[in-house]
Amino acid sequence: MNTHIAPVPLEKAYRLLNHGPTVLVSASYQGVDNVMAAAWCCALDFSPPKLTVVIDKATKTRALVEGSGSFVIQVPTVAQLQLTHEVGSKSLLQVPDKLQAAGVELFRMDGSEAPLVSACSAWLACRLIPEPHNQNTYDLFIGEVTGAWADTRVFKDGHWHFEDSSAEWRSLHYIAGGQFYAIGEALHAKTEE
Amino acid sequence: MNTHIAPVPLEKAYRLLNHGPTVLVSASYQGVDNVMAAAWCCALDFSPPKLTVVIDKATKTRALVEGSGSFVIQVPTVAQLQLTHEVGSKSLLQVPDKLQAAGVELFRMDGSEAPLVSACSAWLACRLIPEPHNQNTYDLFIGEVTGAWADTRVFKDGHWHFEDSSAEWRSLHYIAGGQFYAIGEALHAKTEE
Repeated sequence: MNTHIAPVPLEKAYRLLNHGPTVLVSASYQGVDNVMAAAWCCALDFSPPKLTVVIDKATKTRALVEGSGSFVIQVPTVAQLQLTHEVGSKSLLQVPDKLQAAGVELFRMDGSEAPLVSACSAWLACRLIPEPHNQNTYDLFIGEVTGAWADTRVFKDGHWHFEDSSAEWRSLHYIAGGQFYAIGEALHAKTEE
Repeated sequence: MNTHIAPVPLEKAYRLLNHGPTVLVSASYQGVDNVMAAAWCCALDFSPPKLTVVIDKATKTRALVEGSGSFVIQVPTVAQLQLTHEVGSKSLLQVPDKLQAAGVELFRMDGSEAPLVSACSAWLACRLIPEPHNQNTYDLFIGEVTGAWADTRVFKDGHWHFEDSSAEWRSLHYIAGGQFYAIGEALHAKTEE
């Protein structure tokens, strides 16, 4: 067990996604676990926290999400660049040992039916809010966040601390063709108090 | 006219948003122009390109989008940090000179009813796909991208070139309380050809 994992208050869970990282989607149904990468995941509401994620009909993960009604969104790190690319470019339908081949290790947390991916920086356990029109027309899934956790080495006191952590902890932001960017420099706008 | 602005092929328009930048939403209706910031904007489909954006009921921009059926999503730069924060934290409903106060300059392009914000790095002109349930229940708007452009000093040949451009051109990724991150280092996963 990673002793650096701490709960994130639900009202601050949106901050785990607000900077637009590429995420991993995990789900489990009838004894089958799977993980895929998704660049199209976005916060949707503050309280209760909700998010959207686009999950293609061709993926095995979609069947697991629809079957179980739950999933986990997690934020992978620069150290997981190759893992992220591999779970995003191979399907369990064609590669039955996809997770082992990509080096994915799963763990369980109370409060999440779906498994979590080890060594990520943050995790959001979600209950699917069924919206058949969105799912069928747009491949768009809405989840309510029911639990959130982060690794305190990079997210604590409600804020990311990328600038104070090793570069290996930075989030990944996918473009296309294996090209990603890491998140970069911290910037502060002048605010009126 | 900025001579560095070039069209982006529609099939590559998703790449302008794929890394999860905070965006500016602009719209115009019955002679009123407005611009707001949105961290919750995400690609939804490749072809035809679509995107989602969350627009709160309290914003003036929402009325302009619903009235005109069109809007522009644009990607602001590090040089526009303060502008982005100001259009995201003040409402035209309370501050009638909001755009001038924030230093926003607008321009028009053929193919977009809505105005565009000068000095951004990329622009996506969108036609609203009406989805009243999503709009009313989740403040979630879906747009089909009908035109896309980028500044060739930072996006060309279908790819961002943040690593070869001045740091002022990097995209902004908002967290909370005036805190942003710039996009960072380029990373390449090993791909199977």
